[in-house]
Amino acid sequence: MTAAARTRTTGKALDLGPAAELVSKEEKHRQPLAPEFVSLEDFSPLEVAYDFGTVRRADIEAGPRSIWRYKQLLPVPSDVEQHASTDPGCTRLIRADNLAKALGVKRIWVKDDTGNPTHSFKDRVVAVALAAAREFGFKVLACPSTGNLANAVAAAAARAGWDSVVLVPKTLEKAKILMSAVYDTSLLAVDGNYDDVNRLATELAGEHEDWAFVNVNVRPYYSEGSKTLAFEVAEQLGWRLPEQIVVPIASGSQLTKVHKGFNELGEVGLVEPSPTKIFGAQATGCSPVATAYKEGQDVVQPVRPDTIARSLAIGAPADGPYVLDTVRQTGGSIEDVTDDEVREGIKLLARTEGIFAETAGGVTVATAKKLIEAGKIDPDAETVLLITGDGLKTLDAVQDGIGPKATVSPSVEAVDEALRQA
Amino acid sequence: MTAAARTRTTGKALDLGPAAELVSKEEKHRQPLAPEFVSLEDFSPLEVAYDFGTVRRADIEAGPRSIWRYKQLLPVPSDVEQHASTDPGCTRLIRADNLAKALGVKRIWVKDDTGNPTHSFKDRVVAVALAAAREFGFKVLACPSTGNLANAVAAAAARAGWDSVVLVPKTLEKAKILMSAVYDTSLLAVDGNYDDVNRLATELAGEHEDWAFVNVNVRPYYSEGSKTLAFEVAEQLGWRLPEQIVVPIASGSQLTKVHKGFNELGEVGLVEPSPTKIFGAQATGCSPVATAYKEGQDVVQPVRPDTIARSLAIGAPADGPYVLDTVRQTGGSIEDVTDDEVREGIKLLARTEGIFAETAGGVTVATAKKLIEAGKIDPDAETVLLITGDGLKTLDAVQDGIGPKATVSPSVEAVDEALRQA
Ligand SMILES: Cc1ncc(COP(=O)(O)O)c(C=O)c1O
Ligand SMILES: Cc1ncc(COP(=O)(O)O)c(C=O)c1O
Repeated sequence: MTAAARTRTTGKALDLGPAAELVSKEEKHRQPLAPEFVSLEDFSPLEVAYDFGTVRRADIEAGPRSIWRYKQLLPVPSDVEQHASTDPGCTRLIRADNLAKALGVKRIWVKDDTGNPTHSFKDRVVAVALAAAREFGFKVLACPSTGNLANAVAAAAARAGWDSVVLVPKTLEKAKILMSAVYDTSLLAVDGNYDDVNRLATELAGEHEDWAFVNVNVRPYYSEGSKTLAFEVAEQLGWRLPEQIVVPIASGSQLTKVHKGFNELGEVGLVEPSPTKIFGAQATGCSPVATAYKEGQDVVQPVRPDTIARSLAIGAPADGPYVLDTVRQTGGSIEDVTDDEVREGIKLLARTEGIFAETAGGVTVATAKKLIEAGKIDPDAETVLLITGDGLKTLDAVQDGIGPKATVSPSVEAVDEALRQA
Repeated sequence: MTAAARTRTTGKALDLGPAAELVSKEEKHRQPLAPEFVSLEDFSPLEVAYDFGTVRRADIEAGPRSIWRYKQLLPVPSDVEQHASTDPGCTRLIRADNLAKALGVKRIWVKDDTGNPTHSFKDRVVAVALAAAREFGFKVLACPSTGNLANAVAAAAARAGWDSVVLVPKTLEKAKILMSAVYDTSLLAVDGNYDDVNRLATELAGEHEDWAFVNVNVRPYYSEGSKTLAFEVAEQLGWRLPEQIVVPIASGSQLTKVHKGFNELGEVGLVEPSPTKIFGAQATGCSPVATAYKEGQDVVQPVRPDTIARSLAIGAPADGPYVLDTVRQTGGSIEDVTDDEVREGIKLLARTEGIFAETAGGVTVATAKKLIEAGKIDPDAETVLLITGDGLKTLDAVQDGIGPKATVSPSVEAVDEALRQA
């Protein structure tokens, strides 16, 4: 079904707020807004282009306590907050002085996206994808996922009263499987890794024209949701851009869109434009983008993932080349860390700031540490770390070597004795 | 150490904001603010009494996006938001139309406290306890816990740079154990049930005068933190009180303080005073308060807990009699539900609203259902459900009978076939 046909079936003109057109990433071909994700002219990904009107801080500040406060900068209907959604966003940005001290830098801010409805940043992108999909007349929400996206899609569909189809690699963490299934979605475990599941989803999107695969056929809208991380960080810093930011990379969508978000804030005059160095973080066991970066390549060679950071285990990252562009252009860098470093990163953040992140968060913290030690991150400039997922979903990663200091009988003496030995 | 002595060591006058005195629950004996929890005059629990000044909606609305926006109604220092804390609160209140429809009532609101830093309402009470404990000059944060409190204490202490001692029954869910240990607290597993652990904590509080047991010696301050649930619900409803609310009961502290919170809002003129019926929810396997309520008793007979709702498994609830008072006085009721009903409650909430609650949330939803069916909850009046904890912490409760619909090979045909059969 074409966009026009869909609009006809819903009986009203397409309203995606300030979104004006789709534009291809490579040669900037323009085409009307539609549920399409690749340009047939240059075969590069499509991205949303806007006609932003006047956007005022005061209007945003008076808006809802969710990503919809930024609806004037997103491809969503103007009445978006009237529809049932998980209403993600407006998560904590905390000044992490203990962590900064441990890492020997002046100032670190942690953006804690574990506070989202299904405890990862994926609630943001899914909420935007669902809003656009509704406008295009879709009825089923679908995705291939490394886990967090599965949770977010299943929950958002339940809340909206939609059916959902969720495809995951069968090796996924138990917590992510159960947390998808509990919403009563059509969850299918696929015999393959994420890249197999992703290919399958692309085929299915061609066959089932009523299914909105959030990260396939409606990907241009979906990925805009990551901009809200940039918007919130800037607003929470008092309407200014940070000097440095570390972002984990799976497909690379989030990293490129955080950059786009910062730029747009400058364009519409919500902040004074200022440069932000963007740093990328990967697990060594799945580090195709870090490898390309270090080798000075423009293209990313696919790898077969093998890491505990399963949410980042995308061996063929769709936005890899654009991540390379963004990082080089902003003067950032990309680094990767071992699984042991990931575990240490999780514990370091927990111990210093009381935030329990999943493996992806461990990747971010450990990469920040490595970049600081290498002198790539400036210790005298401030750094924002994006903590995008929750430790409760990847308990296996930390369970070795942590636990009670002792098991004691219920007596004061037993407690005192155990603490003396601890 | 006396409060005066503590104040002396910190070298400044005690600042607990609007808190004026402690007052005993039974005979209303008054005594100065101190880290004490039982009146030596009538042996009843001590509660904080206030001198509220003028409190304006506009000041609250302009305050931080955390419970500290209500600091003028809490026993915390006037500069509380300047100190490192987990800054909990300001969680979602969503209109749950799908759930309301499923239960056959007009309007349900769900207060989703899984969005807190460690994903339960305990972050609220712990943040207030820590702020008061700091003011009293304590250096170590401690607690006996059924799990969520352990997570909240360990995280808050880490963030504040305090040592912590956390005591839990050794049978606790793995997720709650790991999520405490990861913050590098002194976690001790105790060979006994929660009531044994609680007794032990009371003894330890007597021996270790530098330990602030959040729910023992600083309990009067701690418990005031639950009022912020009432404050947020009222503010999120547009500064008015709801008609009915369902609250899970463990020690009973939260239920009585939600009521106190609603009353105080009326007293200081932030809302038009109006009656809210308060309903209590327990699991049948640990339902001493529900039993006392149904039998028309004023005292609560301790029980030995046996339920999957381990966070609510307090067999000798400290605030039991005051829960009975509150519920009777407001025209509410108390009901209990079986473990199977708890599991169904979790799934119902997930399926209808996309919120994955722990067993305590299952107790709340299932109890609401039972009270609606019994005609105790008015279907034409609105009802707020407090969802106080997170499903990721009690995965065992739902793992039987949920999971992928099928495991498939990565082909379109395999997916279509699996969905046809599902
Ligand atoms: C927790 C978490 N962080 C970061 C990412 C990276 O997202 P992207 O694919 O946009 O690079 C993912 C992707 O699944 C994730 O689950
Ligand atoms: C998730 C959850 N909800 C509710 C409660 C009840 O708290 P209270 O002891 O104040 O009745 C608890 C107590 O541990 C809890 O963990």
